[in-house]
Amino acid sequence: GSELLEQERSKSKINVDTLSAFLHSREGLARKRRVLKILENDKVFNKEQNYFAGRIDRFETALARAKKLRQLVIRHGWDNDDRMVANELISEPGPYGLHESMFLITLRDQGSPEQHERFLKQAEKYKYIGCYAQTELGHGSNVRGLETTATWNTEDQTFTIDSPTLTASKWWIGSLGRTANHAVVMAQLIINGKSHGPHPFVVQIRDMSTHEPLKDIHIGDIGPKFGYNTMDNGFLLFNKVKVPHISMLARHSRVDPKTNKYVKPSSPSLVFGTLTWVRSTIVMQAGGVLARGVTIATRYCAFQDRDAPSDAGGENQVLNYTTVQIRLLPLLATTFALHFTGKAMMALYGASQKKMSQDVGKVGGPERGAGPEETHSGSDLLADLHATSCGLKSLASYTAVEGLEVCRRACGGHGYSSFSGIGSWYADYLPTATWEGDNYMLTQQVARYLLKSARSVLKGNEPSNDTTAILANFLARQDQGAAFDVLGNDADIVAAYAWRSAFLTFEALKHRDEQKKAWNDLLVDFYRLSRAHSQYMVVKNFYETLQSPPSDLDPETLGVLHKLFRLYALHTLESEASEFYTSSAVTVRQIQLARTSAVMKLLQDIRPHAVRLVDSWDFPDWQLDSSLGRYDGKVYEDMFHRASELNPLNRITVDPYPDSPTLFKKNEAGALKPKL
Amino acid sequence: GSELLEQERSKSKINVDTLSAFLHSREGLARKRRVLKILENDKVFNKEQNYFAGRIDRFETALARAKKLRQLVIRHGWDNDDRMVANELISEPGPYGLHESMFLITLRDQGSPEQHERFLKQAEKYKYIGCYAQTELGHGSNVRGLETTATWNTEDQTFTIDSPTLTASKWWIGSLGRTANHAVVMAQLIINGKSHGPHPFVVQIRDMSTHEPLKDIHIGDIGPKFGYNTMDNGFLLFNKVKVPHISMLARHSRVDPKTNKYVKPSSPSLVFGTLTWVRSTIVMQAGGVLARGVTIATRYCAFQDRDAPSDAGGENQVLNYTTVQIRLLPLLATTFALHFTGKAMMALYGASQKKMSQDVGKVGGPERGAGPEETHSGSDLLADLHATSCGLKSLASYTAVEGLEVCRRACGGHGYSSFSGIGSWYADYLPTATWEGDNYMLTQQVARYLLKSARSVLKGNEPSNDTTAILANFLARQDQGAAFDVLGNDADIVAAYAWRSAFLTFEALKHRDEQKKAWNDLLVDFYRLSRAHSQYMVVKNFYETLQSPPSDLDPETLGVLHKLFRLYALHTLESEASEFYTSSAVTVRQIQLARTSAVMKLLQDIRPHAVRLVDSWDFPDWQLDSSLGRYDGKVYEDMFHRASELNPLNRITVDPYPDSPTLFKKNEAGALKPKL
Ligand SMILES: Cc1cc2nc3c(=O)[nH]c(=O)nc-3n(C[C@H](O)[C@H](O)[C@H](O)COP(=O)(O)OP(=O)(O)OC[C@H]3O[C@@H](n4cnc5c(N)ncnc54)[C@H](O)[C@@H]3O)c2cc1C
Ligand SMILES: Cc1cc2nc3c(=O)[nH]c(=O)nc-3n(C[C@H](O)[C@H](O)[C@H](O)COP(=O)(O)OP(=O)(O)OC[C@H]3O[C@@H](n4cnc5c(N)ncnc54)[C@H](O)[C@@H]3O)c2cc1C
Repeated sequence: GSELLEQERSKSKINVDTLSAFLHSREGLARKRRVLKILENDKVFNKEQNYFAGRIDRFETALARAKKLRQLVIRHGWDNDDRMVANELISEPGPYGLHESMFLITLRDQGSPEQHERFLKQAEKYKYIGCYAQTELGHGSNVRGLETTATWNTEDQTFTIDSPTLTASKWWIGSLGRTANHAVVMAQLIINGKSHGPHPFVVQIRDMSTHEPLKDIHIGDIGPKFGYNTMDNGFLLFNKVKVPHISMLARHSRVDPKTNKYVKPSSPSLVFGTLTWVRSTIVMQAGGVLARGVTIATRYCAFQDRDAPSDAGGENQVLNYTTVQIRLLPLLATTFALHFTGKAMMALYGASQKKMSQDVGKVGGPERGAGPEETHSGSDLLADLHATSCGLKSLASYTAVEGLEVCRRACGGHGYSSFSGIGSWYADYLPTATWEGDNYMLTQQVARYLLKSARSVLKGNEPSNDTTAILANFLARQDQGAAFDVLGNDADIVAAYAWRSAFLTFEALKHRDEQKKAWNDLLVDFYRLSRAHSQYMVVKNFYETLQSPPSDLDPETLGVLHKLFRLYALHTLESEASEFYTSSAVTVRQIQLARTSAVMKLLQDIRPHAVRLVDSWDFPDWQLDSSLGRYDGKVYEDMFHRASELNPLNRITVDPYPDSPTLFKKNEAGALKPKL
Repeated sequence: GSELLEQERSKSKINVDTLSAFLHSREGLARKRRVLKILENDKVFNKEQNYFAGRIDRFETALARAKKLRQLVIRHGWDNDDRMVANELISEPGPYGLHESMFLITLRDQGSPEQHERFLKQAEKYKYIGCYAQTELGHGSNVRGLETTATWNTEDQTFTIDSPTLTASKWWIGSLGRTANHAVVMAQLIINGKSHGPHPFVVQIRDMSTHEPLKDIHIGDIGPKFGYNTMDNGFLLFNKVKVPHISMLARHSRVDPKTNKYVKPSSPSLVFGTLTWVRSTIVMQAGGVLARGVTIATRYCAFQDRDAPSDAGGENQVLNYTTVQIRLLPLLATTFALHFTGKAMMALYGASQKKMSQDVGKVGGPERGAGPEETHSGSDLLADLHATSCGLKSLASYTAVEGLEVCRRACGGHGYSSFSGIGSWYADYLPTATWEGDNYMLTQQVARYLLKSARSVLKGNEPSNDTTAILANFLARQDQGAAFDVLGNDADIVAAYAWRSAFLTFEALKHRDEQKKAWNDLLVDFYRLSRAHSQYMVVKNFYETLQSPPSDLDPETLGVLHKLFRLYALHTLESEASEFYTSSAVTVRQIQLARTSAVMKLLQDIRPHAVRLVDSWDFPDWQLDSSLGRYDGKVYEDMFHRASELNPLNRITVDPYPDSPTLFKKNEAGALKPKL
C-alpha cells in the first residue's frame, strides 16, 4: 500500500524539484500551481462525474466549462499560456477547441487587414464562434480531392458555396456540430469554369440569435467516437449559398473583383509554416502525454503489494517483476527522450522562423502540400524543418499512443477500470496519429527529403546540415565498415543510429533511382526509413541535452538521466535489431549482449528511481484524475469511494428474473447529476 | 464507392461458399442464419442506439436483451450452441454473462449430487442468478493471496464468510453489481485456525423478492470501464455472514461435519481441466475476433476511392497503398492462422479429455495452480495441453487485441468514429488479455514446461511428443547448423520456427541451470521463448491444415490459402528477424529477401482476393454493426443516416456565447430513447 510509495521515495536521491524545473521551468511550474488553484475551487470543473456521464451530459458540462474558462481568462487577465495550462489541467477537449485554435489562427494568418477588422475582432470577442472545415466525408488526407466548390459570380461579385454530392459534406469538423456560428470552409475556387484549388472562406452558418442553421445550410454533430466525445465534431452541407467577396481570406491569394482574375499567393511558405508549427507542437507534447500513463502505471505497480514469489528474494511489488519493468521503464526513458526532442524541435522551428523573416522576399517558398522534393533550392532550412517535423510527429505520436496502452495493460484488471485514468486519456489522444498528416503518409515526406539529400551528397555537394553530414560520412566510411562500441560509448550509440539511417537512405535510393521501382512499391521501406531517421534524431537530441545540462542538476540525478538515455537507446536498438545488423552498424554479439545484459542491468539500476522520476513530471492528482496514479497511494480507498458513492448505477435496483417484464424496480441515478 | 466492392468481388475466383463452410461448417452457417432471422426481427435487439446510449441506458437495454434471449431459448428450444451464436450476433456482454458461464460451470463441475439438486437446478431455471467471485480488490493473479475467509464453526456446523479488510472486497465480478442473487465465492477455508487455501462457496447475496442485498453484505457495481459497460461487474464485502455446511462445493474436497476434518481433493486435475478448457476457447475464438476488424478495414479500404497518386499507375483504392497492405493483409492471413490453430487446440483438448477419462484413477493429477514443473511424470499429456493452452492464449489474444487497433487506425479518421464498429469491439475484447491468466504471467508456465522437456531430452530420454522431438532434433543437429530454405520450401519454414524455439529453450536452460540465474531475472527471456514457441505452433498448425484440405476446396482457393500461410509465416519471421538470425535458423540475406521481395510479392498476389477472403468469414452486417464494413459498400449513406437521424445530440440546440448562463436552449434528445 501507501507506505510502499513513501519507501520508494525515500530510497532514491533524485532531486525531484530541480528535475521538474529542468523539464518545465520554474515559471511553468508556478503558472500551473496558480491556475490549478483557481480551477480546483470552481464546481463547474469538478471531475467527479466525468467517468460516469453519458455523451450528452458530458457535452453539456464541457460547454459549461468552456464558457467558464473564457470568463476566467477575462477576470484574471490570463494570457495564452495560462489558458493552455488550464486546458491541460482540465484534460478534456471542449466545444471552443477549434475556435480557439484553427479558426483564430487561420483568420490571423490568412486574413487581410480588412478581414481582421471584419472577422477576427468579432472572433476574439467570442461573438463569432468558429471552426475549421477542411475534411469531407469522402476526402481527408487528399486535400486536392475536396469537392466543396466556391464559384465566383462575376455579375454580383459574390461566391456560391456548394456541396455537389453527399461525399462533399464537411465531416469531422471540431466545434461545428452544435457550437459554431461561423466556419472557415476550404473549397475549390472556381472562376470562369476554371478551378484554382482549395481556398479558405469565412462563412456564417448559424443565426446569431436563434443559433439555428441558416437557410440552405445543413449541419449536425457526426455522432459518438472512440474518444473526444466532449467535442461536437460536425458535418456541414451547403445548398448553393452566396457569400460576399470579403469571405475569401485574401492575405495570400485573392480574386480581383475588378478584373475577375485570380491573384496568386505571394508567399505560400507562411501557410506551410503553420502546418509545421502544429506538428512541432505535437512533438513537443508527446513526452508529457505518455508521461501521464507512465506516472500512473509506475506508481500503481510500485504500490501494489504481492506475496513474494519464492524465487524473487522476498521482494513484493509488481514493479519488481522484470516483465513489468521491461514494459514500463523503457517507456519512462522515452518520456524524457521525447520531451528533449520536442524542445529541440521547437528551437529548430524558432530558428527557422527567424531566418525566414530575415530572408523575406529573397527566396520563393515551396508550393503548399507539394513536399520538399519540389521546393526551391534556397529553402533548405525549411525543407529540413518540414521533414523533421513530419518524421518526428509520426514517431512521437505513435510512440505515445502505443506506450499508453502498454501502461494501461501493465496495471492488470484495474487498468481496465475508467478510474485508472489511462483509457480515456488514450482514447482522446488517439486522433493525433491521424490528423495534421496521417502518421503513415507523413513518412513519405521524410523519405523524399532524405532521397533528395542523398542525391545531393552523391553529386559531391558539401554537407550543409546534419542530415547531409551523416550521409556523407556513411559514404566515405562505407567500405571500411563500422565498428561502433554501442555498449561502451554513448557517442558511438548516436553514430550507430546515424549509420543505420544513412544505410537505409542509400538502400532506398538504389531501389528508386537505379532499380526504378515505383513510388508505391517503396512506401513500406520509406516508413521504416522515416522511423529509423526519426529515432536517430531522438537519440541524438537526448544525448546532446545531457552534454550540456543545467548547472543546478546534481550528479546523482544527472547520472540517472544518463542511464535513461542508454536504456532508451539500447532498448530501441535491440527492438529494431535487424536493421542494425543488416547495416553492419552492430554485430549479432553486441545485440545479444544489449538484450541479455546491458538492458537488464539498466532496468535494475533505474528501478529504485522510478517513482521519483515520474514524480518529477509533476502531474497534480487533479489533472490525472486516476485512482491508480494517486501521489499518496490511496488507490483502493479512492476506487471504493468512486464505485460506491459516485456511481449512478448503484442507485438502481433491477428485477433480474427473465420472466418479469420489469427492468428497473427503482431508478435514482439522476440524483448524482451535477448542477451546472 | 459501392461499385468498387462489386468489382473486387468479380475479380477474384475465391469460392466464398466452400471457404466459409470450411471455416464454419455447413451446420454452423445454417445455425447462424436461423438464429439471426429471429433476432433481427425483435425490436429489443435493435442496435440503432447502441453507440449513442450512456451506461445506464445501455445496461437497461442489455438486461432486456438478456431476458428476451432466455425467453427465446425456451420458446424455440435452442441448445447451447444456438445460444452462443445468438450472443455472438448480439455482440455485447450481458448481465447474465457470468451466470451462464462460470456460475453454472462451477456448480456443475464442483458440486456434489446433493448440491446439484439444491443449487444447480434452481440456477438452470434462472431462479438463482449467479456470478463467480474470485478476484479481490487487492488480489488478482495471485489466487493464493485471497483474503476472504470461510471459517468452519464446529459448534453449529456452519461457515462464517468474512472480508477482514477493504482489499478483501471481491472486485470485478461479472453479473454481481446489480444482477446476481447468488455467488460462488472463493474464500480461504479455515478449520481450527488452520488455512487450507481457497475453496468455492455458494452464497445467497440478495433477497429473492426485494432483490436488496442481504444483511451484512455490501454489494455494488464497480463503475465504468474502458469497455464491457453493458456488464455490471461488481464488488462484494461480507461482514461475518454465516452459511450452512452445504454451501461449500464438495465434489473435490470437503469438510467432514462429523470429524471436523478437511478431506483432500481426490482428482484435482479436473479443476485444472476447466481452466484449460476456458483458455482453449479463447484460442478458438481469437481468429474470428480479429476477423471482424479485418473484414471492416479491408472492405472500407477497398471501397474508399482516391485520386490516383501520380506514381501509382492510375490505381485508386486506399487498399492499393503498400503501407495499407502491409498492415492489413498479414492480419488477414493471421485470422486464418489463428482459426486453424484454435481448431487444433480444441482437438488436442478433446483428445486429452478422452485419454484422461480412460486413465481415471491410474495416475494422480497435478496440484492446482502449481504448474507442470511440479506435476507427476505420468501426466505428460496434461502438461503439454496446459502449456500449449497458456502459450497460445497469450499469443492469440494479444495478436487479436493489437491487430484490431491496427485495423481501426488503417481506416484513418473514420476508424475513430463509433460507427466503424471496431473501437467498441476492441474495447470489449481487451480484458481477454488479462483474465484467465494475465498474458505475461502465463508465459512462465510455457517456459517451465519447455525447460522441463529440455532437461528430459538432455538426459537422453526418447522424445515422447512434438515438443521433445524438436528439442532432440535441435540437439542432434546443433553443431552442423541449420540451412533452412525458408524462401523456397514450406516445410523448411516450419522447421526454422521449430529451430528458433529449441534454440531459445536451450539458451534459457543454460541461464537457469548452468548460470543459476534467478527466475525473476529470466522472465523477459521466458516471455520471448513462449512467444516463439507459440508462433511455431501456429505456423505448424496452419501448415498441417493445408496438407489435408477438405476435398471440395477448389485449387484456386487452396492456392490463395497457401499464400496466406506463407505471408503469415514470412511476415512474422521478418518481424522477429533477430531471433531467427541469432539462432542461425536463417541468414541475413534470407531475411532481407523475405522483407523486400517475398513479402511484397505475396501482398501483391493476395491483394485481389482480399475482399472475397473477408467475405468468407461470413459476418452478417447486423453482427458487425459497422458503417465502414457494410457488405454493400453503402458506407457514406449509412454514416450520414446514423449521424443525422439517429444521433440524439442533434436534438439539442445550445447557446454558445460565453456570457450566457444558458447551456441548452432546447433538448429533445430523450425522444430517441428506445422503448424496451
Ligand atoms: C477527432 C478528429 C477531429 C478532427 N477535426 C478536424 C477538423 O476540425 N477540421 C478538419 O478539417 N478535419 C478534422 N479531422 C479530419 C482529419 O484531418 C482527417 O481524418 C485526416 O486528415 C485523415 O484523413 P482521412 O480520415 O480521410 O484518412 P484517409 O486519408 O482516408 O486515410 C485512410 C488510410 O489510407 C492511408 N492513406 C491515405 N492516403 C495515403 C497516401 N497518399 N499514401 C499512403 N497511404 C495513404 C492512411 O495511412 C490511412 O491508413 C478530424 C479527425 C478526427 C479523427
Ligand atoms: C472485465 C473484467 C471482468 C472480470 N470478471 C471477473 C469475474 O467475473 N470473476 C473474477 O473472479 N474475476 C474477474 N476479473 C478479474 C480478473 O480475473 C483479474 O483481473 C486477473 O486475474 C488479473 O489479476 P489482476 O487484475 O489483479 O492483475 P495483476 O495480477 O495485479 O497484474 C498486474 C501486473 O502485474 C503483472 N504480474 C502479476 N503477477 C505476476 C507474476 N507472478 N509474475 C510476473 N508478472 C506478474 C501482470 O503481468 C500485470 O502486468 C475480471 C477482470 C476484468 C478486467
